[in-house]
Amino acid sequence: MARIYIEDLQHHIGEEVQISGWIYNKRSSGKIRFLVVRDGTGILQCVMVKGMISEEKFSSFDTLTQESSLSVTGKIKKDDRAPGGYEMEISNIEIIQIAKDYPITPKEHGVDFLMDIRHLWLRSSRQHAILRVRHQIIKAIREFFDNRGFVLMDAPIFTPAACEGTSTLFETDYFDLGKAYLTQSGQLYAEAGAMAHGKVYVFGPTFRAEKSKTRRHLTEFWMVEPEVAFADLNDNMALAEEFLEHIVTSVLKHRAAELKVLERNVKFLENVKKPLPKISYSEAVEILHKKGINFEWGNDFGGTDETVISEQFDRPVIVHRYPTKVKAFYMKRDPQNAELALAMDVLAPEGYGEIIGGSQREDDYDVLLSRIKEHNLPQSAFE
Amino acid sequence: MARIYIEDLQHHIGEEVQISGWIYNKRSSGKIRFLVVRDGTGILQCVMVKGMISEEKFSSFDTLTQESSLSVTGKIKKDDRAPGGYEMEISNIEIIQIAKDYPITPKEHGVDFLMDIRHLWLRSSRQHAILRVRHQIIKAIREFFDNRGFVLMDAPIFTPAACEGTSTLFETDYFDLGKAYLTQSGQLYAEAGAMAHGKVYVFGPTFRAEKSKTRRHLTEFWMVEPEVAFADLNDNMALAEEFLEHIVTSVLKHRAAELKVLERNVKFLENVKKPLPKISYSEAVEILHKKGINFEWGNDFGGTDETVISEQFDRPVIVHRYPTKVKAFYMKRDPQNAELALAMDVLAPEGYGEIIGGSQREDDYDVLLSRIKEHNLPQSAFE
Repeated sequence: MARIYIEDLQHHIGEEVQISGWIYNKRSSGKIRFLVVRDGTGILQCVMVKGMISEEKFSSFDTLTQESSLSVTGKIKKDDRAPGGYEMEISNIEIIQIAKDYPITPKEHGVDFLMDIRHLWLRSSRQHAILRVRHQIIKAIREFFDNRGFVLMDAPIFTPAACEGTSTLFETDYFDLGKAYLTQSGQLYAEAGAMAHGKVYVFGPTFRAEKSKTRRHLTEFWMVEPEVAFADLNDNMALAEEFLEHIVTSVLKHRAAELKVLERNVKFLENVKKPLPKISYSEAVEILHKKGINFEWGNDFGGTDETVISEQFDRPVIVHRYPTKVKAFYMKRDPQNAELALAMDVLAPEGYGEIIGGSQREDDYDVLLSRIKEHNLPQSAFE
Repeated sequence: MARIYIEDLQHHIGEEVQISGWIYNKRSSGKIRFLVVRDGTGILQCVMVKGMISEEKFSSFDTLTQESSLSVTGKIKKDDRAPGGYEMEISNIEIIQIAKDYPITPKEHGVDFLMDIRHLWLRSSRQHAILRVRHQIIKAIREFFDNRGFVLMDAPIFTPAACEGTSTLFETDYFDLGKAYLTQSGQLYAEAGAMAHGKVYVFGPTFRAEKSKTRRHLTEFWMVEPEVAFADLNDNMALAEEFLEHIVTSVLKHRAAELKVLERNVKFLENVKKPLPKISYSEAVEILHKKGINFEWGNDFGGTDETVISEQFDRPVIVHRYPTKVKAFYMKRDPQNAELALAMDVLAPEGYGEIIGGSQREDDYDVLLSRIKEHNLPQSAFE
């Protein structure tokens, strides 16, 4: 008897199959016992009728607790009333393990409690849906770049002496060779890779030793960093909007059931289509001023500023041409206005704020060198 | 004029296009100047004829050095004699940067020298091919699991106090919360995930603070860890052989040109088809004895032993049922022989040795608990 997964049941209607999983729910009604089994890919209602199975197997029903593991065998029929749409008439049942005092019950639990049993919390329907949505996002990200001929580079996690100071770096002893630091960005590696392959992306864990609570990132988080040789600011903005549209479309298409579990209002998601609105930093400042916010031209936007700006739009908005002093030294300056960097950020609606930052890179060696000197950065490290 | 990539030239025959890239080679012949340009996706021969372009542009040819960057515009025609199969008749040329003293020349360089200029070495044809093969392998790995309904989990890089000692762990200060350690394996996270999703995989960087030079792994390397609930040893072996076949088939299909650059003998690769040969540990020991190697039953195989065993086969070989004492405590014991663990390793041909290790997990709580006590492991950490 081949074991199959609940997600594949539609190919096995009328067949006798085996499912292995965990007790999600059970109830009894006269001579009938209902077991709802989950196997990680779905849930299946399984029915035992007294007299159709050995007395011993039938009465084992009483011992089954939430999250006990078992294998059930039986014939599959379609049943629209059953959760999941199928039902199994159990012909055999094998109990693997009886769970004792499973700590997560339908009642509300606090996050501290749930974090202490994180390995079990993963089984709850909301956590289950989140991980599947996350997987789809990552899959869509890689598809996007792979289908456009980008070459994947994995920049090293261990990096040598930092170019821009060590205050927000995690460090570790690296044998007798001194310290190694955990990467904050693969950008410099990706830039070298783009010169070799034309277009590359880095997608791996990055680290920031910042203890502050921020909506931007955790101390450890995965970051996507494409790098395209010869790309200008317009190319960057086009890449960003195509990228977001591809990811959101993929999640809406393949993870609709999970978004429903999460009670996600998909209105904003359905709007994520190119072209995205594009405004200059100066236009964004005007929006703040019109809203009565006291904001000085030349400063960087804070979280509240980003929220106010993004609330003016029904989808992510691209803000471009920031003052050079709030952006990194390696960004090319606007030939029309040397006070501006050819940089862009994408601000997401619903208060999420900056989700992408990018720029056209300075490609003039002498200019780059003078910027490194102006910023008192260690030239030898950058070489 | 839209900029295109050399890999897309076949769709632009007869059209005027722009290519941006770097000088790979050049030569002149009478009134004709040949530039070979690489853009990371391929190489293209570009031709300038005296009189067909301004004198200034024509003579700029003389200033171009290896790896200088430029944009060339012109009409594309098919030409089987040209490297890459296409040729551009240059109508315009814009030099972006003249490279000075590019350090990598066609002569042989030592690895120490090349490692010091790793960012430039990436551009060399062999390095270029390696990164593209690596990308294809990673893509095939993710496709394999994604197409089989596995859910991706990314286990954290930072882990708390280690279960099995800290001697080979990298550590870092984690604010005022003590030490965090860099992960050696996502297995425990994946096991919890498999109970939630049925089948999951972890695929990210892992770390071993081992300074010894070994063919097994670097101090930092990417590891793939699938975990399947209810899977037995036979399921593991079937997954391993399908996995290897999928990866190798994908690379042979999509990276034939790169394998040629690498002068890879693909004979062993073409053999990587299921079923792979499967032998028990005891049969593997017999092979060693027949070859006159002094090996005591019960020990773990060393690198040379693995090479001798794998040399007997024309494709990877699966060795199963190892002595429990050379395998981890959480592996289930063979019900036929309590001295054996239901473990398997895949040994690759050509001296590469172990490339996969796996096992059926012990699923009896009481047995697992007694093993943790036997091995003097900290029960609380595992809880």
